[in-house]
Amino acid sequence: MNNIADNLSRFFEQHLPLVQQMQLRVESYDGKTLILSAPLAPNVNDKLTAFGGSLYNVAVMSCWGMAFLKTQEHSIVCNQVVTRANIVYNSPVKGTIRAICHAPEDDVVESFIQRFQQRGKARLDLKSTISCGGKTAVEFEGQYAILSG
Amino acid sequence: MNNIADNLSRFFEQHLPLVQQMQLRVESYDGKTLILSAPLAPNVNDKLTAFGGSLYNVAVMSCWGMAFLKTQEHSIVCNQVVTRANIVYNSPVKGTIRAICHAPEDDVVESFIQRFQQRGKARLDLKSTISCGGKTAVEFEGQYAILSG
Repeated sequence: MNNIADNLSRFFEQHLPLVQQMQLRVESYDGKTLILSAPLAPNVNDKLTAFGGSLYNVAVMSCWGMAFLKTQEHSIVCNQVVTRANIVYNSPVKGTIRAICHAPEDDVVESFIQRFQQRGKARLDLKSTISCGGKTAVEFEGQYAILSG
Repeated sequence: MNNIADNLSRFFEQHLPLVQQMQLRVESYDGKTLILSAPLAPNVNDKLTAFGGSLYNVAVMSCWGMAFLKTQEHSIVCNQVVTRANIVYNSPVKGTIRAICHAPEDDVVESFIQRFQQRGKARLDLKSTISCGGKTAVEFEGQYAILSG
C-alpha cells in the first residue's frame, strides 16, 4: 500500500472513533480501486449477518476515502463532507464486510479538482458496492463536497 | 416509557454491538413519535461534529424502531430488515444526535399489518429527521420489510 493510503488509515485512527470500533481498515488501494473492510463480529446484527448501519458506514467511507485520496494526490488541502447518499440492500452479508470503490474516469477527477481550484468548492458523485457469495449485496451512491479549509 | 419501548432498548442491547458503541438509546416513545439519541463523543468526526455514518445509523434505527414497535403493538413475530434508504445532510450536528420518527397514519400501519397477515411479508416507507440549532440538519427516508420468521 502506498503512503497516500497510509494517510487515509491514519485519518480514520485519529479522527473517527466509531470507525475504530467497527475495526474498519484500508485493505488496498492501487490508484484506481479502494477496498475497505471490516470484520463481522463488531458489526453483527440479530440475524448474525452484517448490521445495515455498518454496511452503510463501510460503503460511505470507501467513497469518502476515494475522494480523500484523489485530493491528496493533487496536493489539495480541504474539508470534505458527504452531502447525500442512497443505499440499496439486495441480500445479507454473512462475513467480512468489504466495500469496493472504483475511481471515476481521469477527466471527471480532473474537472472536480479544477472546479475546486477555481471556486474553492466542488462536488463529486461516487459509487461503491459490497459483495457476498458472488452477489452484489449492497449498492451505494454518495455525493461528496470539498471546501477550502 | 412503555413496555414496548423497553423491548426496543433490550433488542439494541442484546443484538447490535455497534449501536452499543454509539451509546444509542431510546429517549421517548408515545405511540406516535419515537426519539432515539446518541451522545457526540463516541460519534464525533474530524470537525468535532457528528460523523455522517453515525447520523445515518441513528436515523435508520429510529425508523427501524418505529416498524419494530408497530409490529410489537400488533403482536406480530417477524424478521425485519431495511431494504433501501436515502439521506440528505443539510448542515452539521454539533451536539447530541437526536432522530425523530413520526408514525405513519393509522390506515397506513393497518394496511402494512394486513398485507403481512395475508402474504407473510410487507413493506413500509418511513422518514426521520435530525435537527440541530432549530434547523433540519439531516433528512432520512427508508424502506423496511417484514418477513414471517
